Amino acid sequence: MLNSSENLQNLIAEFANLPGLGRKSAGRLAYFIANAPKERIDSLISAIKNVRDNIKKCKICWTLSDSDICNICSNENRNKKQIMVVENERDMIAYENVGEYKGVYHVLGGAISPLIGIGPNELKIKELISRLKDDIEEVIIATNSSVEGETTATYLAKIIKPFNIKVTRIASGVPIGSDIENVDEVTLLRAFNGRTEL
Amino acid sequence: MLNSSENLQNLIAEFANLPGLGRKSAGRLAYFIANAPKERIDSLISAIKNVRDNIKKCKICWTLSDSDICNICSNENRNKKQIMVVENERDMIAYENVGEYKGVYHVLGGAISPLIGIGPNELKIKELISRLKDDIEEVIIATNSSVEGETTATYLAKIIKPFNIKVTRIASGVPIGSDIENVDEVTLLRAFNGRTEL
Repeated sequence: MLNSSENLQNLIAEFANLPGLGRKSAGRLAYFIANAPKERIDSLISAIKNVRDNIKKCKICWTLSDSDICNICSNENRNKKQIMVVENERDMIAYENVGEYKGVYHVLGGAISPLIGIGPNELKIKELISRLKDDIEEVIIATNSSVEGETTATYLAKIIKPFNIKVTRIASGVPIGSDIENVDEVTLLRAFNGRTEL
Repeated sequence: MLNSSENLQNLIAEFANLPGLGRKSAGRLAYFIANAPKERIDSLISAIKNVRDNIKKCKICWTLSDSDICNICSNENRNKKQIMVVENERDMIAYENVGEYKGVYHVLGGAISPLIGIGPNELKIKELISRLKDDIEEVIIATNSSVEGETTATYLAKIIKPFNIKVTRIASGVPIGSDIENVDEVTLLRAFNGRTEL
């Protein structure tokens, strides 16, 4: 794309590299920035910097957190004996928004996908196993209902069972092939209540 | 939306304030940033800063530019006697990408829209008029074919005509490649009225 400004061209390229942004949306954003008041841009930059500099992974559940232990793991009202295993932070937030689940989480950081070179060692599975040494009553596997998510669920069930811990899988009320973050809350609740033992 | 990190929450809010980004895309972007390598984020921040600090408006055509005069206005091969008037920089780039037009541009910065308080004084119309003192041969009005764009075109035609300069309007009609059955009635009427002899 031709352009009257190299700086603008670079910004469009940066935006177009972000997930879910095509060339057109990237252009719209860049032109917006180019015409926006300085304070507005400064506020965007400082929000990005704060995430860059201050975000950590919770040392227990591996979700994104402002402190070493996230506010769910450090919440005394959450049931530490119930662990819901999710692929990523967005899936966790999706379940948090339902508001029904009172246990804690474990964020795997993805799902097993040999095609793109993600095996069990690339995920926080060792870290999950190390949490099972406590008096855990149930591990709820809430990976996506995609091929990768199902593979991961089966794998996890197999390695958790020897610990004599109840392993459940959220029900397939979640439409096959869709991402948990995009599913409506009623369906998410249905899937949670209909979970079955593996 | 509940969240495990306030920094992340803020960044989602910042992204959701940008044009064309909903809550969901904003979340996806923020989580991407939270998981991205530092260099990647730094490169995004520096691209935004460069636009914030270095972008000016061309003193002739008012497009975004890295210097006082943009590289189209300063290009000796462009025909300075032909001015295409567009609403914004993106429309200008759209015509540049066609590659056929060899004249110069004038960026109004919007279209007349009394409903949202944009009158002629809010646009670069005085600046356009001041360019008409030279030996201009044609002003091509390429504002959008929306109500606002049409209003602006009519207004501009009225104030440019006393200068004895040819004023033209880009044609509106059925878009190439579209099915007539899917085209709206106003466009069909416009296409009928603007028919040309073969």
